[in-house]
Formats: sequence, structure tokens, C-alpha cells
Amino acid sequence: MPPPPSLIATCPVGVYDSGFGGLTVLRQLRRTLPELDYLYLGDSGRAPYGGRDVDTVLDFAEQCVERLLAEGCRAIVVACHTVSCVALRHLQQRYGSEGRRILGVTIPAAEAAVAQTRGHIGFVGTARTVASHTFRTEVRKLNPDVEVSEIAAPLLAPIVEEAWEDTEIARLAVQRYVEKFSGIDTLVLGCTHYPLLERAFNELTPPDVAVLNPAPQVAERFRAWRERHPGLAPAGSGRLRVLSSGDAGRFARHGARFLGEPLPPVEHVAEQGGRLALCPEGSEPIGQVVRL
Amino acid sequence: MPPPPSLIATCPVGVYDSGFGGLTVLRQLRRTLPELDYLYLGDSGRAPYGGRDVDTVLDFAEQCVERLLAEGCRAIVVACHTVSCVALRHLQQRYGSEGRRILGVTIPAAEAAVAQTRGHIGFVGTARTVASHTFRTEVRKLNPDVEVSEIAAPLLAPIVEEAWEDTEIARLAVQRYVEKFSGIDTLVLGCTHYPLLERAFNELTPPDVAVLNPAPQVAERFRAWRERHPGLAPAGSGRLRVLSSGDAGRFARHGARFLGEPLPPVEHVAEQGGRLALCPEGSEPIGQVVRL
Repeated sequence: MPPPPSLIATCPVGVYDSGFGGLTVLRQLRRTLPELDYLYLGDSGRAPYGGRDVDTVLDFAEQCVERLLAEGCRAIVVACHTVSCVALRHLQQRYGSEGRRILGVTIPAAEAAVAQTRGHIGFVGTARTVASHTFRTEVRKLNPDVEVSEIAAPLLAPIVEEAWEDTEIARLAVQRYVEKFSGIDTLVLGCTHYPLLERAFNELTPPDVAVLNPAPQVAERFRAWRERHPGLAPAGSGRLRVLSSGDAGRFARHGARFLGEPLPPVEHVAEQGGRLALCPEGSEPIGQVVRL
Repeated sequence: MPPPPSLIATCPVGVYDSGFGGLTVLRQLRRTLPELDYLYLGDSGRAPYGGRDVDTVLDFAEQCVERLLAEGCRAIVVACHTVSCVALRHLQQRYGSEGRRILGVTIPAAEAAVAQTRGHIGFVGTARTVASHTFRTEVRKLNPDVEVSEIAAPLLAPIVEEAWEDTEIARLAVQRYVEKFSGIDTLVLGCTHYPLLERAFNELTPPDVAVLNPAPQVAERFRAWRERHPGLAPAGSGRLRVLSSGDAGRFARHGARFLGEPLPPVEHVAEQGGRLALCPEGSEPIGQVVRL
């Protein structure tokens, strides 16, 4: 029996990322399933996650997923590769159930890469993503004969967060990282920020190397999953809400580049007592802060 | 009455930073007071602090200061501008006493800038440092007629962490930030990473703008303070211990660029039960991490 309309109206698909980057995944999801409602949470006040220790990543991921669940989400796509590589299983064990699912991007990325490669995949991601070797692990499960080279590119997400992806700085940084690979035939963009650097990657990799943005495969896998679980991601009216822990105005302005269309007014969330709470912006204290 | 030698031997000056950057301050301190023992703590596993919320910065600062106090420090220099701008007063109220002092870098930086300016100071720092406006507040206390322009430069610390400070990428990034200032006569490097970019700053600012690294003034103020409080920072034998929450080998390699000399073997610290504890490295997990 389908749920009553009032419930449907409050059950958006949650899309979680450390910042702007996941909007590139949301863009694909909305293209594939435009009739769903979506709630995007970008933790840009604390991005990038890539250089943080594992405990911090788990703390942030718990807070963000709890916020999305509190907003009524029953299906959450963890768009961030760092969280997906390190914390997905933890999130699934802690929050997943028959009525709530947490999905990641690492397995879709591995599937897309294995389908395309002639034998040697390059993977570029954050320091934490690469240190986890989770992408390589997932590729080996699909085909143990495929070689995987993983390179950390800690500067690329900050460059995109700064909206400098069309500068010479971005080109030079991409070049430095790409030069570290040798003999690959497929290069996976293993961070949701990197599709904004796709032109630089395409120009700076050899012509026989295919640059792969995993987002379409993530959306395709989500579409297939949703056919089996329509109740967890019911059809809505294509609405979109956006939450951010960073500067809301800046998020709306920059976010449009990632989403490919203007964002709705961005709602602000902030850490309060270990939880991520909806709160008006500008409540951040100025100057010295003394805590009793 | 001076303390007995056994106590002197265990009373180093603590120097605390979010990562590598404070080693540029330690370098000045050791140049000014080479006979003291120093204990450096770089919280690089959780760096950068610049995008964190205030509560988190306070939590981290408490943990780090408590570790240094537990190691016998009676005088602690908070070298990190972010911590100094946001959490110094809190640390002083919570941990300071007749026998223990916590010193910051913001007031020395303001003093050096006010002594040098002809009326308009530029200040470049992390997002959190700039959002606090603490530097401007301190300048205005010294001279309310001085104008202060503060610019956040979120990409510069990551560039230095990547050891790319001598690349064209660094030059172009410094140029973009410097161009945002107008009419300044003095530019304060308000992050301990930036002295490694001093050449770029000097080349890319107009010739009538003085680029100011506050570290010598921090060391000079510490020297004067220490003359009044010799018991809190007794002469030792110039020994140095280094603790880091990040990768210890990487910290030792990169740290030498900041300190200007090789580092001793770096000891690893990690958060355990809300405290920063000495613990062997290599405990960092690979792959998916599930926390109970």
C-alpha cells in the first residue's frame, strides 16, 4: 500500500557531501529521476574532509546523516568519496534498516572503471580516500587482474571550493598530479569536486587515457536500486532543499556551477552540542570565545 | 630559590600549532633563546583548523594544551593564529595560573604591525582567523586610527602543506590574494605557514608595502616575558622534542623546511577518550572503519 500523500511529501532522497562537490552527483540524480524530491546537505563549513583523521570523518558523517534522517530521508546517497571509502559501512550498520538505507559511490565508481579499463586504472582522490585503498579493494573484488594506481591530490578540492577551477593554478595543479601516473588507460575522478576540473584532466592526460566521472553510474545504480525500493524514495514533485554548514550565500552562488542550475535559498546548519542543527546564519561568535 | 636540576630537566617551553606552521615560530624562539628546552606539538592529523567551528577549535586546543601541561610545560606559546584569535582567552582562563602561562601570537603581531604602519594594515590569514576579527580588535586597542583590511586565503596553507611553496602555483595563488588589498602599506602574514611563501609575497606586493612575518616579534615578546618569569621557562640544554597527531615520518620530513634544520624523531599522539595521548603510530585503519 503506498504511503499517504502527506508522508510522501516529507520523504526526500538525502544527498550528503563534504561540500559543493556532491552537487555534481545530485545533478545526475535529478537528470535520471527528476520526479523525486531531494534534500542536499553540504558540510562546507568543515570541508575538505580529505586530510582529516578517521575519527573526525566518522563524527562528521554521523552528524550529517542524523540531520538528514531527522528531515525525513529514508534513502541517503553518500556522494563524498572520502566518507564513502572510510565510513559507509559504519553508517550502514548504525543507521540502516528495512526502512532506511545508506548508499555510497565507491562500488559504482569501481564498476564503471572495470567496465571501461583495458587493465590499468588510475584513481585520483583525497589523501584520506587514497589511504583507505577502498577503491582498489572494490575493483579487485570485480576483477582481481586489474591493476590500480591511486594518487592523492590534496590541493584539488580546495581549488574548486575557492572557485578557481578555470585558472592557470588549477591547470598546473592537475598537471602535477596527472604526471604521477604511469601506464594507466582509465583515470577515475575519485572526488565529487573533480568533475569541475574535467576539461583540465582531459587536456592534460594522454589521448589514450579515458577520464571517468563516476556520477552517471552512481545515478544509474540508484535508479536500479529505487525500482526495487520505491517506498524508500517515493515520487514527489521534483523539489529540492539545500542545507549547508558554510556561508549560505556563497554556497548558493558557487553551488550553481556544480548543479548546473540555480539553487533554492540555502538553509544554514551548524554544530551545536555535537549535533548538526538548523540555525540562522550569523550566530557564529566573533573574537575570543570563552567556554565555561 | 631555583628549582632542583631534575625539575628543570622536565620543564620545556611548549609550542602548539595546528600543524607544521608553528615550526616557523619555534625557529625564531630557538634563535632568540637557544638554551631553553622546547616541546613542539603539531596537531596535523586534524589540520587545518581554519574551517572548523569555534567549539571544535576550543576542544582541540584544550586537548593539546593538556598534553603539553602533562609533559611538564609551564609556559606554552600558542603559535597558531586561528587558535590564538579564537581560543586564547579561554585557554588562559582554564589553564593559566601563577605557575602556568599561555601566550599567543595575535598581540605581538598587532604590535609589530602598528609599529611599522603608516596607517593601513593588511592582514592575510585562514577563514576562521579572519572571521574572528581579533587581529583588527587588537590593532584598534593599540591605535584606533589605524585602518585594517583582513583577507582570508584558504588555499595558501594547503599549498605549503603540499610542499609546493616554490612553484608557479604558489606564486599565482599569492598574487590572487594580494590583489584583493587596496591602499595598504604593511601586510601581516597571519598564519604560521605563510613565512614559507615570504619570497612570493615580497615579489608580488607593491614596493611600498612591507611584508611582515610576526614570528620575530613573538620571539622578542617571549624573551622579555621570560626575563620576568625565569622559573616558568628555565634554561635547559637546547633540547627539542616534537609530537604530532599526523603521520610522524611525513612530519619529520616536511617539518625540516619550516624549522630550518632536521627534526628529532617525531612522537605520535592521537585522541583517545577525549584526550590526546602518546601512542605508537600505524594504528590508523585502512578501508572501511566501523565504530561501536
